[in-house]
Amino acid sequence: MKKIMAINAGSSSLKFKVFNMPDESILIGGVFERIGFDAPEVSYKINGFRQKEKPPIHDHRDAADYLIEILLKNHIVDDLNEISAVGHRITHGGSDFSDSAVLDRTVIQKIENLCELAPLHNPAGLLGIRTFMKRLPKACAVAVFDTSFHQTLAPETYLYPVPLKLYNQYHIRKYGFHGTNHQYVASEAALLLEKPLKDLKIISCHLGNGSSICAIQGGKSVNTSMGFTPLAGLMMGTRSGTVDPSIIPFIMKKTGHTIDEMMDMFNKESGLLGISEISNDFRDVELAAKAHNEQAELAIKMFVNRVTECVGGYVALMGGVDAIVFTAGIGEHSASVRQAVVSNLAYLGAKLDFQSNEENGPYIHTPDSKVSLLVIPANEELMIARDTWRLSEGQAARLSEKQTVRV
Amino acid sequence: MKKIMAINAGSSSLKFKVFNMPDESILIGGVFERIGFDAPEVSYKINGFRQKEKPPIHDHRDAADYLIEILLKNHIVDDLNEISAVGHRITHGGSDFSDSAVLDRTVIQKIENLCELAPLHNPAGLLGIRTFMKRLPKACAVAVFDTSFHQTLAPETYLYPVPLKLYNQYHIRKYGFHGTNHQYVASEAALLLEKPLKDLKIISCHLGNGSSICAIQGGKSVNTSMGFTPLAGLMMGTRSGTVDPSIIPFIMKKTGHTIDEMMDMFNKESGLLGISEISNDFRDVELAAKAHNEQAELAIKMFVNRVTECVGGYVALMGGVDAIVFTAGIGEHSASVRQAVVSNLAYLGAKLDFQSNEENGPYIHTPDSKVSLLVIPANEELMIARDTWRLSEGQAARLSEKQTVRV
Repeated sequence: MKKIMAINAGSSSLKFKVFNMPDESILIGGVFERIGFDAPEVSYKINGFRQKEKPPIHDHRDAADYLIEILLKNHIVDDLNEISAVGHRITHGGSDFSDSAVLDRTVIQKIENLCELAPLHNPAGLLGIRTFMKRLPKACAVAVFDTSFHQTLAPETYLYPVPLKLYNQYHIRKYGFHGTNHQYVASEAALLLEKPLKDLKIISCHLGNGSSICAIQGGKSVNTSMGFTPLAGLMMGTRSGTVDPSIIPFIMKKTGHTIDEMMDMFNKESGLLGISEISNDFRDVELAAKAHNEQAELAIKMFVNRVTECVGGYVALMGGVDAIVFTAGIGEHSASVRQAVVSNLAYLGAKLDFQSNEENGPYIHTPDSKVSLLVIPANEELMIARDTWRLSEGQAARLSEKQTVRV
Repeated sequence: MKKIMAINAGSSSLKFKVFNMPDESILIGGVFERIGFDAPEVSYKINGFRQKEKPPIHDHRDAADYLIEILLKNHIVDDLNEISAVGHRITHGGSDFSDSAVLDRTVIQKIENLCELAPLHNPAGLLGIRTFMKRLPKACAVAVFDTSFHQTLAPETYLYPVPLKLYNQYHIRKYGFHGTNHQYVASEAALLLEKPLKDLKIISCHLGNGSSICAIQGGKSVNTSMGFTPLAGLMMGTRSGTVDPSIIPFIMKKTGHTIDEMMDMFNKESGLLGISEISNDFRDVELAAKAHNEQAELAIKMFVNRVTECVGGYVALMGGVDAIVFTAGIGEHSASVRQAVVSNLAYLGAKLDFQSNEENGPYIHTPDSKVSLLVIPANEELMIARDTWRLSEGQAARLSEKQTVRV
């Protein structure tokens, strides 16, 4: 049994989980929030017991030190060398990474080069990598990319209908994100359905503050709704998703906004927040809609419509669907969104079991439904740990081979 | 029997057709091209005979004069007053026009105000209106809008997930275009299927140099792929259709392009042309693809994929589909595109009759297909004539009523 740590570093947050592998039991899981702001917090759970602390930390480095203290004082490890590998979630792997990768100088350099494509996310990931490589120099370090799973997209799917030179010169293409979770729920769906993943057409609806849908055929991503960046596709908490690009120059001329201000508006002031004018949090909007707030009702209708349209589009692209999976915050917890989406899919023979839908699944279809409908909680950390385990074991095997040769 | 003229004025072209109404027989149809450029031409057809002339015209006014000469010398009319009404195709009717409208000062003013939303198209339409109102002052003049048919879209469909104030202040919403033809083919489909339009769910695929798809339920447009402008939606001849908006600032920073240059690129250098680097004309691209040009093959795959995804999305939004119609240049003439799109729709029970598909329909489904598949030639001029006839007759009735009251 080995201890594997999964790290998900954001610009002001740091999520962590330590697993015993390969049995996948969780030793500890938690999150630092408000790093770099006033009153940072850390909360974590061990054996079902939840702790909350206000650590005296100023940056990610401090957070990493404090995390190591937590691991030691709670006897998750008694010696840091017990952590055999650390897996890092990295948003953008560009076209360089179609799988997770053991971190070395070359890989780190490539991730640095990709900061241009993910200027908000990759630097945070790199900070996490550097911090833990210093604290745990003996642990194998692995990068797990949000984009890797979608590297199986065909050129006709990943290219945009813009001048081809934009792809050749600037790598403008659909990358897709949330790949770690789409891949995870697809494999879980196959287990739940007791069918080989290679025989299944699955649509994974990752609906949260960031939302994306993925069409998965034979275990491979064949299309996904996010694009060059995570702005594209569905309506999200604060993101517009895809819109007519002509809106941009029109508004710029009307308001004097710069292109960067327009992008800020589309990324931070749009989506559920922009329409409801209440919140980017679906739970708040749903509550307001229940109280008959018209803008909240409108926002939810728009959200559901766009999910429905995307699901229907992917059914057509795959020529059918065996299973539709709902995952992430909204997907796991909003029975009404699932019901609204599925209610339009009767033409596919999809039938919702209302009772199990209310109970959040995992199986929410009736026995005679022609499409399996599933609720599968997102678990990116587990997928990170699995990849980290797989690659670090491989790495260890290669190293011991080398040593054998040397001997 | 009355003579109705349909006029479709573009920035350098003027299409015309004269119909005998209500029997809808065509007396003459033709087009002026290259107006304002070197060597303008006019070609027209009377009783199946085609004429081509090089008229000494410099602008739309000259073209109108020359058209009147053509009508007189060919005895389409012997007196201009025989033209009882003229219908004008106007691109953008904004939210002001949910139906065609008899042109008066108020209506013309509204169309002028809408130039902001269609700066390339509405001014050309206004020029046509003004020219023919002077030449044929006694004829009733009617505006037929590309947007009217889509005014039945629900707010959750026509709004974009951007701050709601952009709609309230600047009328940012999905308008949709090609409405005249989508409405026309929907009514023709009902006739071909011998079923009431109100009972049908139809998807109209208007695939040409400009392409859009429309979901029509009970005769009403419930969604369409073009948006705030005709740039949005599908991949087209030179237009990108919808793309991740984040591409724009990225390319602007890389190349120093202005936002207007970016829009020019998306409107004029993208789509089939941008990917194939051969032509914006589907026929040229199809020929190159047959000769195994890889970029041409790629462009066609991308085009077909986006059509398929959109069709599938609209099937889901309507909860099923009774008929899929192919219309406009590519829709009417490319058997291979129709076959590629339909081949993915077997899950709906859609079955193509290959023989009748090769013969361009009108019925291209097998007897046991669960979805009707139709090819219906676009006929915007006829729809313009029908609306113009309907409104001019109504106008005449109102005027005679007024006269009766006066007497």
